[in-house]
Amino acid sequence: MREPEGRLCAAGLVLLLVLAVAQSAFRFPRRYTPDWRSLDSRPLPTWFDEAKFGVFVHWGVFSVPAWGSEWFWWHWQGQPQPQYQRFMRENYPPDFSYADFGPQFTARFFQPDDWADLFQASGAKYVVFTTKHHEGFTNWPSSVSWNWNSKDLGPHRDLVGELGAAVRKRNMRYGLYHSLLEWFHPLYLLDKKNGFKTQNFVSAKTMPELYDLVNRYKPDVIWSDGDWECPDTYWNSTNFLSWLYNDSPVKDEVVVNDRWGENCSCHHGGYYNCQDKYSPQSLPKHKWEMCTSIDERSWGYRRDMAISDITSEFEIISELVQTVSLGGNYLLNIGPTKDGLIAPIFQERLLAVGKWLNVNGEAIYASKPWKVQSEKNTTSLWYTAKESNVYATFLHWPEGRVLSLESPISTSKTKVTMLGIQEELKWTKNPSGGLLIFLPLLSPSALPVEFAWTVKLTGVK
Amino acid sequence: MREPEGRLCAAGLVLLLVLAVAQSAFRFPRRYTPDWRSLDSRPLPTWFDEAKFGVFVHWGVFSVPAWGSEWFWWHWQGQPQPQYQRFMRENYPPDFSYADFGPQFTARFFQPDDWADLFQASGAKYVVFTTKHHEGFTNWPSSVSWNWNSKDLGPHRDLVGELGAAVRKRNMRYGLYHSLLEWFHPLYLLDKKNGFKTQNFVSAKTMPELYDLVNRYKPDVIWSDGDWECPDTYWNSTNFLSWLYNDSPVKDEVVVNDRWGENCSCHHGGYYNCQDKYSPQSLPKHKWEMCTSIDERSWGYRRDMAISDITSEFEIISELVQTVSLGGNYLLNIGPTKDGLIAPIFQERLLAVGKWLNVNGEAIYASKPWKVQSEKNTTSLWYTAKESNVYATFLHWPEGRVLSLESPISTSKTKVTMLGIQEELKWTKNPSGGLLIFLPLLSPSALPVEFAWTVKLTGVK
Amino acid sequence: MREPEGRLCAAGLVLLLVLAVAQSAFRFPRRYTPDWRSLDSRPLPTWFDEAKFGVFVHWGVFSVPAWGSEWFWWHWQGQPQPQYQRFMRENYPPDFSYADFGPQFTARFFQPDDWADLFQASGAKYVVFTTKHHEGFTNWPSSVSWNWNSKDLGPHRDLVGELGAAVRKRNMRYGLYHSLLEWFHPLYLLDKKNGFKTQNFVSAKTMPELYDLVNRYKPDVIWSDGDWECPDTYWNSTNFLSWLYNDSPVKDEVVVNDRWGENCSCHHGGYYNCQDKYSPQSLPKHKWEMCTSIDERSWGYRRDMAISDITSEFEIISELVQTVSLGGNYLLNIGPTKDGLIAPIFQERLLAVGKWLNVNGEAIYASKPWKVQSEKNTTSLWYTAKESNVYATFLHWPEGRVLSLESPISTSKTKVTMLGIQEELKWTKNPSGGLLIFLPLLSPSALPVEFAWTVKLTGVK
Amino acid sequence: MREPEGRLCAAGLVLLLVLAVAQSAFRFPRRYTPDWRSLDSRPLPTWFDEAKFGVFVHWGVFSVPAWGSEWFWWHWQGQPQPQYQRFMRENYPPDFSYADFGPQFTARFFQPDDWADLFQASGAKYVVFTTKHHEGFTNWPSSVSWNWNSKDLGPHRDLVGELGAAVRKRNMRYGLYHSLLEWFHPLYLLDKKNGFKTQNFVSAKTMPELYDLVNRYKPDVIWSDGDWECPDTYWNSTNFLSWLYNDSPVKDEVVVNDRWGENCSCHHGGYYNCQDKYSPQSLPKHKWEMCTSIDERSWGYRRDMAISDITSEFEIISELVQTVSLGGNYLLNIGPTKDGLIAPIFQERLLAVGKWLNVNGEAIYASKPWKVQSEKNTTSLWYTAKESNVYATFLHWPEGRVLSLESPISTSKTKVTMLGIQEELKWTKNPSGGLLIFLPLLSPSALPVEFAWTVKLTGVK
Repeated sequence: MREPEGRLCAAGLVLLLVLAVAQSAFRFPRRYTPDWRSLDSRPLPTWFDEAKFGVFVHWGVFSVPAWGSEWFWWHWQGQPQPQYQRFMRENYPPDFSYADFGPQFTARFFQPDDWADLFQASGAKYVVFTTKHHEGFTNWPSSVSWNWNSKDLGPHRDLVGELGAAVRKRNMRYGLYHSLLEWFHPLYLLDKKNGFKTQNFVSAKTMPELYDLVNRYKPDVIWSDGDWECPDTYWNSTNFLSWLYNDSPVKDEVVVNDRWGENCSCHHGGYYNCQDKYSPQSLPKHKWEMCTSIDERSWGYRRDMAISDITSEFEIISELVQTVSLGGNYLLNIGPTKDGLIAPIFQERLLAVGKWLNVNGEAIYASKPWKVQSEKNTTSLWYTAKESNVYATFLHWPEGRVLSLESPISTSKTKVTMLGIQEELKWTKNPSGGLLIFLPLLSPSALPVEFAWTVKLTGVK
Repeated sequence: MREPEGRLCAAGLVLLLVLAVAQSAFRFPRRYTPDWRSLDSRPLPTWFDEAKFGVFVHWGVFSVPAWGSEWFWWHWQGQPQPQYQRFMRENYPPDFSYADFGPQFTARFFQPDDWADLFQASGAKYVVFTTKHHEGFTNWPSSVSWNWNSKDLGPHRDLVGELGAAVRKRNMRYGLYHSLLEWFHPLYLLDKKNGFKTQNFVSAKTMPELYDLVNRYKPDVIWSDGDWECPDTYWNSTNFLSWLYNDSPVKDEVVVNDRWGENCSCHHGGYYNCQDKYSPQSLPKHKWEMCTSIDERSWGYRRDMAISDITSEFEIISELVQTVSLGGNYLLNIGPTKDGLIAPIFQERLLAVGKWLNVNGEAIYASKPWKVQSEKNTTSLWYTAKESNVYATFLHWPEGRVLSLESPISTSKTKVTMLGIQEELKWTKNPSGGLLIFLPLLSPSALPVEFAWTVKLTGVK
Repeated sequence: MREPEGRLCAAGLVLLLVLAVAQSAFRFPRRYTPDWRSLDSRPLPTWFDEAKFGVFVHWGVFSVPAWGSEWFWWHWQGQPQPQYQRFMRENYPPDFSYADFGPQFTARFFQPDDWADLFQASGAKYVVFTTKHHEGFTNWPSSVSWNWNSKDLGPHRDLVGELGAAVRKRNMRYGLYHSLLEWFHPLYLLDKKNGFKTQNFVSAKTMPELYDLVNRYKPDVIWSDGDWECPDTYWNSTNFLSWLYNDSPVKDEVVVNDRWGENCSCHHGGYYNCQDKYSPQSLPKHKWEMCTSIDERSWGYRRDMAISDITSEFEIISELVQTVSLGGNYLLNIGPTKDGLIAPIFQERLLAVGKWLNVNGEAIYASKPWKVQSEKNTTSLWYTAKESNVYATFLHWPEGRVLSLESPISTSKTKVTMLGIQEELKWTKNPSGGLLIFLPLLSPSALPVEFAWTVKLTGVK
Repeated sequence: MREPEGRLCAAGLVLLLVLAVAQSAFRFPRRYTPDWRSLDSRPLPTWFDEAKFGVFVHWGVFSVPAWGSEWFWWHWQGQPQPQYQRFMRENYPPDFSYADFGPQFTARFFQPDDWADLFQASGAKYVVFTTKHHEGFTNWPSSVSWNWNSKDLGPHRDLVGELGAAVRKRNMRYGLYHSLLEWFHPLYLLDKKNGFKTQNFVSAKTMPELYDLVNRYKPDVIWSDGDWECPDTYWNSTNFLSWLYNDSPVKDEVVVNDRWGENCSCHHGGYYNCQDKYSPQSLPKHKWEMCTSIDERSWGYRRDMAISDITSEFEIISELVQTVSLGGNYLLNIGPTKDGLIAPIFQERLLAVGKWLNVNGEAIYASKPWKVQSEKNTTSLWYTAKESNVYATFLHWPEGRVLSLESPISTSKTKVTMLGIQEELKWTKNPSGGLLIFLPLLSPSALPVEFAWTVKLTGVK
């Protein structure tokens, strides 16, 4: 799909061309021009599609009030909501400002190695970290965000750098979330007042910071956000991306998403996030990623989480299975506390994913969508494929222990196993086509996992 | 066991005596003298044994540092441990004292009705709340703890009163934890220095507060603690208890534990706690209670809880089952945050108990120990009894679906069911005695609970 | 004056009695009974009348809000005044309590030696320090004021002890201010509710603390306050005083004032303060002390002092001169900041007094009232006497340089000098009686002081 | 003096030229080019020389630690001094940063009208206020100092704007102190590292802020500082000044000082400050200003001021008199507290100046240097002149009441008076030339002022 060279074909010419292309690829790597046609043509580095599962981390000054959501500031003072105003009135002196929260963001217990151990144990292959959310506070010592960054204030540490080192030590990829807009930055507000015909904010803040992030931390992903109020021409997105793809230190491996200006999302950039928590119903044509949060009501830490707001293990694994079957990556979010700790409930959920992937990862990592994604009229069984193997993950154990699959066509070489169990499973042809598989008779505690079991089919079509 | 009157027996005398006792019970209720022989003879009010499951709540100024454990102060300044000293050095200005933490104990999100809803949903029949831990801070406006209580400082609320009202509105019983000693109270230190020959502290602090608690909050349980450094004569325990049993507003229903002076524990008082997390191996002669904490390393909230320190649902339910089978009550602790919130992981655990009890509560509440508690050589199956029913709760599902019980003797009327499932289970006599029960063939998600299933036997001996 | 033995007179008996009394005084010192007749008969230790000038220091948690006055708490929550309520509303979170101020009373720059140097340089012979104001916070580690004292909270120091050591190192006397009542102490409120028929507060708090203060710090003055709501019988004042006079470690030298119960002030006790800032118009029969504050609107530190609220040097010295002439002592107050610093304006005033006393102290220290205190119809010239010398201090320099004194009667030995100037002054008899004194012709800067010059008369009657 | 056109002279040409210049002056006001030759030629607006006395105010985040001096940050972390490091170690948690002080700069009692009343009562004709000190915190809502300014953080007010309004309401002129450099701004440090060959900081911070200040607040003075590390070419000073003089809204009335780049001070710009507290010994050729601080050890507020560090009233007035006599303006500094209050000692000093100027202002305001400034060999008598009057201010009252002046030459019309006194003074010719003036015989309190009396001579040469 993304190999335009492949379209050339004319007998005698081919060899020459191939040689020429090979040479030019060697000596003159392809360069991208700052327009979407060119930029969209870049092949996605392969590691990303193979990774499948990542952990998203939202951390910032919003972790200090830790109430409502990471949009606290906006709900309090941008488009004020009464409950946020009341929260401030009841708990802080009059005239307390958002900036006054800064020194309380201490990160005093932040142990990046502990975080990275947990993320690794969750089975994640990449981690995406908020370098700067819409509040504008930078989690690294940005020279254009003086005294509103994690080195000058609060933690007094380079959070982006420290987490990156820990993540990479464990061979996970490291992605940087970055918000283009800052709700209340005076230069952004000035540009907005000017109908985005001036770019004071972009030249003083956004671009210096994006270049700084790339040069300093060499990210594997740039997870762009906050693009929605202005066109990509305001943001200078295509210029940045052409530099990123042509000349940056990460030009070969970096992956970006699709939030680079209004109307970009789901249309341009690297892989597509479309909207938050986007989940397509059928196989998209373009690589995508579903991002979602264990706390259903917030991406940042909320002190007042109720267990009813926490996504269950079953839901998380169901989403992961479905997402991967439909060709997506699954990026699961947690919000650490202002102290730098990860709530036990988040630890528990992440470890549950890790435990599940430990058994079923074969059906996930580096898999590809199969010819069908699920059987008709059900959302509880999902296929993936890898090499010649087909994997069917079923979310509920069928009453009667007989799993009916309609799409695979058996052959003489067909074999069926269940991931996590040694012996082969018995099966027969399904009269209506496909296979009937006889699941093993196991006590609940002898099952390899509690839900979402995977049968592996070899020799099927 | 606890009815001394029952020992009298002399033919002609019996009837008269019975009448006399009945009358005196009516008109002249029995009075207890301030000595253990008399006090220990008091029958335990029946509600307690029937309740079986309670929730314990540790809350205080220790919830502010929220690090290490609720013994923070002691480990920092009583018998200093280097890591506590380092914690203070790294995070607070020099000369910061424990009392300086007081104003930060805000309880700002404390909603007693939310707590009580959760406790009720956990299946608890009683709640025990720390009115004052060894730190001496009182969670109610004690007039002898001025400016070191939750009304004058920090929360500015009567925490004991507010939680009590919410708990009772839901028909749960309300118990008050109270520490006799206060590590650093100057009058206590003075008495200690005097070899506990003076009682300055007891007369100025302990006794006024205990009487105040009883008169003000009319507790169902007094959960005494902090007795271990001095004899009960120092504490005036027997005087207090005789008043409590004879003349207090709760004399009929109140239950106390056994921590009233050194060597009292496991020997005197109401029911026995013995040591923390005490769990006997065989049926004790005296009513007892196992208290334990979901966070294995602390009773008070710790910010740095790791999921590996959190008791699993399976362990909790296993302990509950074993405890009740052995005649005990199970008091499960959580520590709320300084803000007054209960961490989602605690919510999850408590609700898991509630969900389990919802199915299996019949085998727990108001049950009695059966003739045996468990089968030989196993700790994964526990019996209880109620009326003529016998309940066997097995923690692991047997491979092969056949549950073997050795102790019950079947009769012609024997019937076997599983709690949470409609139909009767098939069974046969076990060649070696007892029954072999054929468990239903159910998919994992169709099981009534995930572990610890209960079979109910009627018509057995 | 207060020697009742003096009234005995019967010829032959006298000698024997005198001998007996002398002996008993030696071997069996006189004992006081706990009633005013006896206690009032105790002679005032002589050092106090000779000292004349002392510094008063008000320091406590009220130094944290440092607004309004040291009665902050009362005006806020006792008898609420709108401006105090507004102050709290505008500057603190809702529900902030007075006790929450505690940790902010840091005393971080408190250098008792610097204070004592300053007090010494002011010419003060004694210092009176608030050990506990009506707020109840003790500036020493009282064992009955746990966690509401300067050792457990805030300063983490024994302020009373440290200041005392520094004061005494410089040979000044050390007095302890102590408030009997505590506005909001729950036991005090309980006694008040009981019409002061119970003495819970007195036995649990007041008396233990007074005895502790005396035994621990051996004060030269007990400056009692906060007596006004109840009779001395409630406070147990006479019992305390009889112990103080008979058996305490300071029985010989201690001086007390007159605030020991309603209607005591100006009638019983040691010297009289009568009301605050009391200043009689003619010579009282009883030793008295005027206490007043450099900041006219507060005794405790106020951040919002305006210079118009600060007593001028001239007013201070005028008051000192008048007070001493009328037989009183002058106790001048300053309020240090919560940091433990003394505002430069207070330093300036105290040093101005010291500078003045350096020249004129001869007319002040150890002086006695003269036969008249001032001339008719003027309040700007005041007499004192010492041995055979008479001192006339005039506050304003007379136009024409001729000072007219009517009361002294000259003799052949009369000599007139001015303190601070070497040569004798010329004088003549005043035709209307008294003397006309010719003041020296000096440039303003050559005058020994800027105002309140003293002429010393010898050989007058 | 500085009008180069004046040098043109050629008979017939003159009239035409004069007309032309007059016209062009009317229609085409003179424009300055961005070089020192042109800029230095601008005549100083006359109001400044007439004003003579101004109040300087240093306020910023340094008012929070309020210890050492307003250079706190530099002494702590720039060129660390042990006592500053110890101060932080002893009073704050480890890792506390300067930015963490921000929220504590509350300005909660800041009443600009109270300040302005005081400044007016001091006799000041202008007020210079720190808009931004070397710490970089802006006291107005600068759009390029986001979250490090007084609107976003701490005071949450536009301090520059509020004080300006209050000052101007009282017809005082308003000047803005502005530091070119910011010790720790990352862009400044970057430029410094580049040998000041880049101007990232100037274009991102300094220039936007200077233009913003001028356009927003229309200052009468720009009191530049912090220039010393780099040449004016780095700072773009001449460009800014040419805009300021040619096109800014304050081009006609604005006055600037001389700190615009290394080697500018005392050589270029508007009036000269030369170094801090500069005081020449003879009459300079160029208008100058002496800036000094009441607290001799700091410009910003220090909590630990000792009275010995406070300049006395006599010293202040002596300096004022000498400065004006030597053609300078006197700018006297105070540092308000973080609460927005002015310490009483500063109030007292400022009011003392006002009281003195109330009597002697005639000799100060709008005066010019006289032909001599002081008599030989004395520094305690200083001349000024206004119209045909000559004023001699003598700091000490001569013994013998005869004031000897050598420089004035009497005429038949000579009259001598003393400011503040009605009647004329007697005088005779001094044999050695000049006058001998007989001062009035007044009691100290009848003198118009306490020191520094002014005699006014009319009809002298």
